[in-house]
Formats: sequence, structure tokens, C-alpha cells
Amino acid sequence: MNAFAPQDAAYESRCRSSFARQKFMTTLGARLLSVAPGEVAIELPFRDDLTQQHGFLHAGVVTAVVDSACGYSALTLMPAGVAVLSVEFKINLMKPAAGETFRATGKVVRAGGTLTVCTGEMRALHAGRSDVVAVMQATLMTVRGRTALTD
Amino acid sequence: MNAFAPQDAAYESRCRSSFARQKFMTTLGARLLSVAPGEVAIELPFRDDLTQQHGFLHAGVVTAVVDSACGYSALTLMPAGVAVLSVEFKINLMKPAAGETFRATGKVVRAGGTLTVCTGEMRALHAGRSDVVAVMQATLMTVRGRTALTD
Amino acid sequence: MNAFAPQDAAYESRCRSSFARQKFMTTLGARLLSVAPGEVAIELPFRDDLTQQHGFLHAGVVTAVVDSACGYSALTLMPAGVAVLSVEFKINLMKPAAGETFRATGKVVRAGGTLTVCTGEMRALHAGRSDVVAVMQATLMTVRGRTALTD
Amino acid sequence: MNAFAPQDAAYESRCRSSFARQKFMTTLGARLLSVAPGEVAIELPFRDDLTQQHGFLHAGVVTAVVDSACGYSALTLMPAGVAVLSVEFKINLMKPAAGETFRATGKVVRAGGTLTVCTGEMRALHAGRSDVVAVMQATLMTVRGRTALTD
Repeated sequence: MNAFAPQDAAYESRCRSSFARQKFMTTLGARLLSVAPGEVAIELPFRDDLTQQHGFLHAGVVTAVVDSACGYSALTLMPAGVAVLSVEFKINLMKPAAGETFRATGKVVRAGGTLTVCTGEMRALHAGRSDVVAVMQATLMTVRGRTALTD
Repeated sequence: MNAFAPQDAAYESRCRSSFARQKFMTTLGARLLSVAPGEVAIELPFRDDLTQQHGFLHAGVVTAVVDSACGYSALTLMPAGVAVLSVEFKINLMKPAAGETFRATGKVVRAGGTLTVCTGEMRALHAGRSDVVAVMQATLMTVRGRTALTD
Repeated sequence: MNAFAPQDAAYESRCRSSFARQKFMTTLGARLLSVAPGEVAIELPFRDDLTQQHGFLHAGVVTAVVDSACGYSALTLMPAGVAVLSVEFKINLMKPAAGETFRATGKVVRAGGTLTVCTGEMRALHAGRSDVVAVMQATLMTVRGRTALTD
Repeated sequence: MNAFAPQDAAYESRCRSSFARQKFMTTLGARLLSVAPGEVAIELPFRDDLTQQHGFLHAGVVTAVVDSACGYSALTLMPAGVAVLSVEFKINLMKPAAGETFRATGKVVRAGGTLTVCTGEMRALHAGRSDVVAVMQATLMTVRGRTALTD
């Protein structure tokens, strides 16, 4: 269904190098799992210092990782020399984010010249099970001509 | 406009104690500024390890703090013995989150028996200026009868 | 992927009869195409009196039909005797809604005791092509014990 | 708080003439109440053929009118010669839309060169009461250089 052709052949190294500059992903302990045209996956091991008051992963942590997955899935399809910014997103937190490891996926639904629409999800992996705990719908923007902003 | 009467007289200490159990807020360095019926403010100093690839606060950090402000504004109006959970939210990231300090506010728009609707915003404070960089619309849930979950 | 078991064996007639009571769907000329457990499709022929200022289908019309598709997909999985209400939704209007006929689909992502999360989309059919013009993420509620409200 | 300066002195006549071309607003019986820089109000009398299965105004009707109010509030601040399009919005339906008349308001929160963020609400007027039944957060786009699209 998602047969997207990247405009920048170096899309993977570009995403990996931008992800490496997202210091907050390092702070969370998140790791870029896979980068394909229009689809990116990020893994996050559970950590006690990322929790909310009931001991589950904080909604903001879930959101941060799914947002990054959506952002990089959008960036895979952008031309060289531009930057990606999150315009807005909406997330449904369907189940408590309880698990040993979490896996976020971002997928491009439509890549336009200015705006890209993505869907994302977060899965909790626990004792051999994989449950979708959150789903996101996001709008990303291609920012051109600002030399201070790339990727 | 927001003249809400709390059902639990201990609403402030209850929010402060629940916030103190949100380990992720400690990880971020966020501080509960004020707790009033239907309105809560949280402050977050800028820190380099909370940034995205362009050096601005990561959208997930902005979201985490505004989500907590909305969640606690909802909790101020809930009866004793229940828990608050984020059902979903939508956030618009209107400007790059650049600043020395950030201030999130959550306000209840409607408090129902099961669902509460809140609006939130994040302001960036910088060189005497205060700019709204993000606005949120959120749905929170009152969770009853689960003894493992309170506040 | 969506292998949902309906709790009410009469789910289809119940959806069809509720849809027939949605007078606004009649006003729009919308027709219930198919009703399966967790998935509902609605068709809408283009009509000039449903347009916005540029001659495309108004965003509100797109939204109304996709919202109804999501609502009825949620209702297929609810027990007898309850009612479905839309709590909130978010829609991305990705392309101008231009076409001869439009087809909305609503699918359940997670059916909970109180809240159901759905995704929806609207396709424009035109000259043998089928384009997704909008995607929705929605939260629906199971309303119990209000005798005035059913289905 | 909303001290916006219009770039096009003819902003009011431009909005009124574009609204008059939204045939769907005529179909609904909606009327443009007021047009100010960054703020627009629309009125809609209740009509039985606009209802959902429980006899309340259909969520799609509520959405259509609030979306138009947001769209025109954004257009008041756009330069001459461009068009406004709804990129996406999220709406919370907080109470059943029951009333004799409904009043939608759209307000600009931030007007950017490409994207404008608005908030909207719908009030139900009934027996001297005025209740907010829905709140919206919306993203609109300034579309330039497409001669077929204006206002």
C-alpha cells in the first residue's frame, strides 16, 4: 500500500544522523530500529524514570517516540536540503503503556509538497505479547530555505 | 469563566502528591507551579538534553508537560478515590519551542462524570517575552473502582 | 486484522435502523453500503448543494459521513440496549474532495467497555480512480442506562 | 488578546462573499453573523432534517459550521488574492447539541505565513441559556498562486 519513492537516495543515513542529534531520544534511551521509504520504527525499553503516577509509561514519553517515528517517516520522502517540523498531532492512549519494551511505528499516508500526513502507533511488548497501546494521526511540514534548519 | 467548585477539599495536596509520583516530571526537571480548581500550571527550565535535532525543545517534552497540566487541572475537580487518565489529546506546535523557561497551563473546559475536556498551552519565556508556542485540546477520564489506580 | 466478535447478533439491522433515523444522512443523500463487525461503509454521491466556496465537497460534509461510518462501526460491537455517541474526532483533509461519488469507511481499532477508538477515511471516486481525500481518528462512547437514548 | 491587523482592508466583504458561495451553508440554513479581524460568528437555527438518530444536531453539522467559522476567521487575516483551506481539525462534542439556535465562533490563535491555528466553539441557545456544546482546534492553510482558488 505504501509504495513511496524517496527523492533523496541518502534518506536512511540522513534520518539516522538527524535522529542521533535528537538529544531527547538519547535521554529516553530510544533507538532507531528501521528506516524505509515512508516508514520508520523506533524502540524504547521501559525505564522507571519515564513513568507517570501509576507506574505506566508517561503519555508524553509515548507521544515523543511516536512523534519522532512519524517525523522521520515523513523525512524519508522529502528532498535533500529541507527540514521536517511537526505541525500538530493527535494521539489516543488506548491502554495503559505497560510492558518491557515499546515499539513505535510512523507511516506516511500522504506526502505533499508542503504538508505530510502520517499515522503512528505504539506497541507494548510483554511476555511474548504485542499490544497496540496508542495510535496517532500527525501533520508534518517541509521547511525550505532556512539554512539554520536541516533534516 | 471557570468558576469550578472542587468535590474534594484536599484537591491541592492530592495533585501535588500525585505529581511528585510522576517520575517522568522529575526526569524532565518540571515543577508544579500552581494548583487551583480547574487550572494547573507547570514550569520547565530549558535543558539541552530535552531537545530535538534543531536544538528546540522536543515536541514530546512540550506535550508531556502540557498533558500533565491538563491532567491535573482535571483531577482538581474529581471526587476523592478516583484516578485520572489521559484518553487522547491534540496539540498544535505553532512556533519553535525556544526559550529559557517554559510554562504550561491546563484548564478545564467541561468536567463530566466520566470525561473531562481541557485546553492547555505552553508559553516560552525569553528575554522578558512570553510567547504561546503550543496549544492543546485534551480528553481525560475519571477512572473509578480500580483500587490499584488513584489520583 | 480486525477480527471482532459482535455482542449483539442483530448488529446489522440495529445499525441500519439507527442510520435510517439519522435524518441528516437522508438530507445529504448518504446511503449505508455495508455493515460488518467493526467496519461500516457509507456512500455519498456528489451534489452541488453540499459544496464549499471552491466547488469541492465541504469539509463538514466529509466529516459528517466519516463520523457516521466510525460511529456505526463502533455500534456493531456494542451490547444491545446501549447508545453510541461521538466524543471527539480529528480529521485531516488531505486533498480537495472532488469526485462523482464518495465512499467513507469507519473501522474499530479498539473497543473498550466505555470508549471505542476508530479510524476512518473518505475516498473520492472519479473516472475509475479512487483517492483517499481525508483520514479520521475518532473516540466514541457507549452510553448506558439512558432509556431515551438507544443505538 | 486578539489584536490582529488585517492585511486586506476589504476582509469583511471578502469573507461575506466567499461565505455566500459556500452552498452547503445555504443548505444548512447558516447565516454569517459577524466578521471581525481574527474572529467570525455564524448562526444556525435548529432544523429537524439536520439531526442524528437521537434527535440532536448531527456532529457533522456542528463541525461544518464551526469549521466555516474558523476558516473565515483565518481568511480575515490573509492577504488579498489567496485562498483558505482547512488542513485538519479536532472537535470535542461535550454535550448533546440540543437547542433552538446554535452559534459558532472561530478565533485565530496564531496567523503564520502558511498555516493559521484557530480555536472554535459551538453554543446552543435554549430558553435563555447559552451552553458551549463543542470546542474545536483547527489548522488552516493559505493557498497562493492557484488562480482557480480564491478566498
